[in-house]
Amino acid sequence: MEYLADCRARLAFDLLANTWNGVVVWALRHGPQRPVTLRKRIGGISAKVLNETLRRLEDSGLVVRQAYREAPPRVEYRLTRLGESLLGPLETLGTWAETHGDEVVVR
Amino acid sequence: MEYLADCRARLAFDLLANTWNGVVVWALRHGPQRPVTLRKRIGGISAKVLNETLRRLEDSGLVVRQAYREAPPRVEYRLTRLGESLLGPLETLGTWAETHGDEVVVR
Repeated sequence: MEYLADCRARLAFDLLANTWNGVVVWALRHGPQRPVTLRKRIGGISAKVLNETLRRLEDSGLVVRQAYREAPPRVEYRLTRLGESLLGPLETLGTWAETHGDEVVVR
Repeated sequence: MEYLADCRARLAFDLLANTWNGVVVWALRHGPQRPVTLRKRIGGISAKVLNETLRRLEDSGLVVRQAYREAPPRVEYRLTRLGESLLGPLETLGTWAETHGDEVVVR
């Protein structure tokens, strides 16, 4: 597969160009979650950045927002089928990092 | 695998946070290449950005530079074993993009 600057694979790299995209998709792998729980699971992400990431993932069709008419109102996010389909590549990448993380020199 | 903000898997996502890192590693999968050939294969990358990317990949231990004392002097870049180990995850990501590229809405 030839990866030229303007081709489809670039899209996957661009999607992961924002590190939080991959992290948030992975954090949703076990099912719907409320933002507050997501923030706890992920750690180190501000409410603002989490909201922006969820909005971006929603716009890309990877995540869907579910609002419940309760008092107080409840909102959950879950992966779409497209979002779930990204879990495989994310796991492969994560496994690579677990195995080789120490070898990569981060400057 | 829990992906927290400060853990090893973040490193893989950070590595791919620069889209050109993944593209250049993938373009080197068939063996050593000179920058001028790499630029043709990749398309859409400037000499400056390619050089910066190769330097960054070299610093991370994913690529190695080979200079030949010839007239004119010749330089090639090739993947290290660590760089080669990243080809698997990159291929999985690329295949995902080929399959699902059209479903992802890019805003």
